[in-house]
Amino acid sequence: MRHLSHWGWGFTEALPDATERKNLAMLLSAVGFPAPTPVPYPSLDAIDLPAPGAIPDELAAFATDDREERARHTYGRAFPDLVRGLAGDFGAAPAFVAYPRDEADVLQVLDVAAREGLAVTPFGGGTSVCGGVERAGAISLDLTRMDRVLEVIPESLHARIQGGARGPRLEAQLAEHDLTLRHYPQSFELSTLGGWLATRAGGHFATRYTHIDDLAASIRMVTPTGVWDSRRLPGSGAGPSPDRLALGSEGILGVITEAWMRVFPRPRWRSKASVHFADFGAAVEAVRAIAQARLYPSNCRLLDSTQALLDQVAMGEHVLLLGFESAHHPVASRLDEVLAIATAHGGRVAYGPKHLEDGDRGARDGSAGKWRESFFRGPYKQTALVSMGMVADTFETAIPWDRFDTLHRALHEAVTAVMPEPGLLACRFTHVYPDGPAPYYTFVCPPGDDLMGTWRRIKETASDVLIAHGATITHHHAVGRTHRPWYAQQRPDPFARALLAAKRELDPAGVLNPGVLLAETE
Amino acid sequence: MRHLSHWGWGFTEALPDATERKNLAMLLSAVGFPAPTPVPYPSLDAIDLPAPGAIPDELAAFATDDREERARHTYGRAFPDLVRGLAGDFGAAPAFVAYPRDEADVLQVLDVAAREGLAVTPFGGGTSVCGGVERAGAISLDLTRMDRVLEVIPESLHARIQGGARGPRLEAQLAEHDLTLRHYPQSFELSTLGGWLATRAGGHFATRYTHIDDLAASIRMVTPTGVWDSRRLPGSGAGPSPDRLALGSEGILGVITEAWMRVFPRPRWRSKASVHFADFGAAVEAVRAIAQARLYPSNCRLLDSTQALLDQVAMGEHVLLLGFESAHHPVASRLDEVLAIATAHGGRVAYGPKHLEDGDRGARDGSAGKWRESFFRGPYKQTALVSMGMVADTFETAIPWDRFDTLHRALHEAVTAVMPEPGLLACRFTHVYPDGPAPYYTFVCPPGDDLMGTWRRIKETASDVLIAHGATITHHHAVGRTHRPWYAQQRPDPFARALLAAKRELDPAGVLNPGVLLAETE
Repeated sequence: MRHLSHWGWGFTEALPDATERKNLAMLLSAVGFPAPTPVPYPSLDAIDLPAPGAIPDELAAFATDDREERARHTYGRAFPDLVRGLAGDFGAAPAFVAYPRDEADVLQVLDVAAREGLAVTPFGGGTSVCGGVERAGAISLDLTRMDRVLEVIPESLHARIQGGARGPRLEAQLAEHDLTLRHYPQSFELSTLGGWLATRAGGHFATRYTHIDDLAASIRMVTPTGVWDSRRLPGSGAGPSPDRLALGSEGILGVITEAWMRVFPRPRWRSKASVHFADFGAAVEAVRAIAQARLYPSNCRLLDSTQALLDQVAMGEHVLLLGFESAHHPVASRLDEVLAIATAHGGRVAYGPKHLEDGDRGARDGSAGKWRESFFRGPYKQTALVSMGMVADTFETAIPWDRFDTLHRALHEAVTAVMPEPGLLACRFTHVYPDGPAPYYTFVCPPGDDLMGTWRRIKETASDVLIAHGATITHHHAVGRTHRPWYAQQRPDPFARALLAAKRELDPAGVLNPGVLLAETE
Repeated sequence: MRHLSHWGWGFTEALPDATERKNLAMLLSAVGFPAPTPVPYPSLDAIDLPAPGAIPDELAAFATDDREERARHTYGRAFPDLVRGLAGDFGAAPAFVAYPRDEADVLQVLDVAAREGLAVTPFGGGTSVCGGVERAGAISLDLTRMDRVLEVIPESLHARIQGGARGPRLEAQLAEHDLTLRHYPQSFELSTLGGWLATRAGGHFATRYTHIDDLAASIRMVTPTGVWDSRRLPGSGAGPSPDRLALGSEGILGVITEAWMRVFPRPRWRSKASVHFADFGAAVEAVRAIAQARLYPSNCRLLDSTQALLDQVAMGEHVLLLGFESAHHPVASRLDEVLAIATAHGGRVAYGPKHLEDGDRGARDGSAGKWRESFFRGPYKQTALVSMGMVADTFETAIPWDRFDTLHRALHEAVTAVMPEPGLLACRFTHVYPDGPAPYYTFVCPPGDDLMGTWRRIKETASDVLIAHGATITHHHAVGRTHRPWYAQQRPDPFARALLAAKRELDPAGVLNPGVLLAETE
């Protein structure tokens, strides 16, 4: 059994070894980076951890103040989290960690918290990249023991799943019924259904079902003042959607314990291809044309040449990964339709079209195969880069097509200006809509004089540009604490007041995730 | 120029004439109905209207206490509204009618209302079928002077449209740009964009874009305590969606003055067919298979044999209307795919497949053509039936596939039991999802001893059955006042408290649509 790292991304056994770190350093030196200054991965013995809080009697059966548990529940996995973890700074550790076994345990935690005035941090995979976890002295409420698929209704393609189910555990249980949720965020290995719902996670499909929102048929959420349980429905028009207020609430209104999810039969047919472009603008136009033709490919990911280089899928060209999948019908002709659009925009088919059926499920060749591997490995690489003294992080957004070019240029200009040379700023589209793309940026650069200062300058600059150009501060990474200042500029003021009023009604003691989404002083 | 009826559906000139009423009577007598007792359409002179309220000075420039205006703004167009209108009972008339010319006028109305303690009823097409309008002595806030398409961005397929734009006016303005919203509720001729958004109206597409919700890129809403304006975005994950709290808020949080809508290029290719089934269960299974194959036809409407009879599209058979449309590619092969499913389930292709391109736009033949005509004529027929002393109304819902059969049987049993003979209960699917259908029921029966009592018994019985069987009290007709008791059972209690807290925050004087969605005493 693998062992979760107390500081870095994912599993200790999967953290990049000396060879992988060396390869990364070589890749960067090829684009002019100075030699890195790697530091050893930190040991648990060397960390600085405040004293634990006392575990109230009611929680004793399912809570722990174990040192490693508290360390592992201190941060998410954003850049500042990795830096602090590497430095052994765990000052923001929770008082203790509770592992509820059922909803009654969750209620118990909320009751005790309200009585003792303790903050509660709902914790799933612990993979927040926007400061969603850190809260010194809080109760860390780790849902991962509530990880079962409780009920499956194949006729309606519905499955009732507990909030603490991590990606692989959830999929393994659905696979017993030949079903799948097909939600694969980059954190899939670690993150949980409840976390996906609370943060409006982005998933597998590049079009149509972009967020987990679209896959939820009902949500059950324990609030400090009662259980919120919506009807399992394919659609409704009865008042504002309760599910849509739970989605994205980031744990400030309640703890998501269960949801009825819309699942899929496992796809039988897949067709895929990669198209390379010499010109980024032409590639963007091709993607817009595909999105507006409403052909809805399941994969439609554009990597600019820098991203393609980082992912080692192409050199000097922009890469568009295209794919369709279906449990019902062959999808070769659909792929032909989007390839016709892509080539009409100057693209060159570099791989495929490749058509797979059933047994070929494992096939992982071509750019898409390489990219997929690189995709899930990405956060591990970030951990390695940070351990080598580099600044390495991502930010993401969504924006209408008419504003994309200006935004993209402004970001390049502004971020390059504050990034120590030789910085890299790579762009890909994770999801696309008929009315705009969801661009995702990765930046890597040397630390300059002050590692954290450099990171903060880049992050703030990028966020300012997003907000100034009409983009969203986040398409699927959530708000947490990090994005709060820009979220405060983005949200309609009356909505912010409505949300705060709802929060006060449901959580009068203010115990749930204080400081996330809304400022503690609000 | 046509003239809006003060009491019946739509335009006075379009109300069924003697011939149409006679034909309706003949149709019903063919299925055993007694001879009707038609009454003449009511004249404006004969109605009972309370004295108007005084128009405050600030509103004098755009408000009126005209007798006809007040009558026309008294009710929606539900069955009880038609009955009262026919009887000349306009006791619930508003104090006066305000026609804001711009947002400043809307703000002015809300200010005056808060100061004077007057209720405000936002009014669009006045086509509510769930008691969304009636409020004696309120200010009726008629938005239909704010009816312009203000801005169009073809590159992103976005259009900024005022809330008071009625269907035809909105489409005519978009047509100048070769664009269309493609949202055709049955009330299209009368209802407004703001009304559609506030009530989560169901539209043209039978799959995928079922509600107007999916077409809104941002919403601007004037609340009594500030303007709520969300960013124009293709997608976002920044907190719970503000738009989704505005959608379905039915005027209790604010008045929707504008929205950025996702529009479409006008379709160039269309393919359509009708499939007849001898067995309803087989037809339902065919629709489920089509929905779960995720082929997303734009039309996929199932009419049971009673509905097919009422719509005069078939005798003794169940009819499935299928269609695809696209501005980008021919859709003949897509239609073939769904026809293969339908025929595999025992369906017989009775019309088509017919393929249309561009110039053929006007073609309106086959069952789909007849049905379309009948669809928009439906509410006029209801007005005629009521004027002939009949009970005639509809209710609608959505439910997962696994619960549909039981619900459908229970509804038939319960409604038939309380309906005077020879009652008709017809069913169609207006929208379908991979996880369930949205069934829509029409009932027509003689009045029994007590017209209103008979209607109320049927409505309450049907609503009880919907709630008891896990369905929603409304898929796209909204809650209004009529559905409130069942909505109160359906919504999660903590959500109801959150919504009420939001309402109190945004509308502290409680002037906006009191009694709609939430009880006045809540």
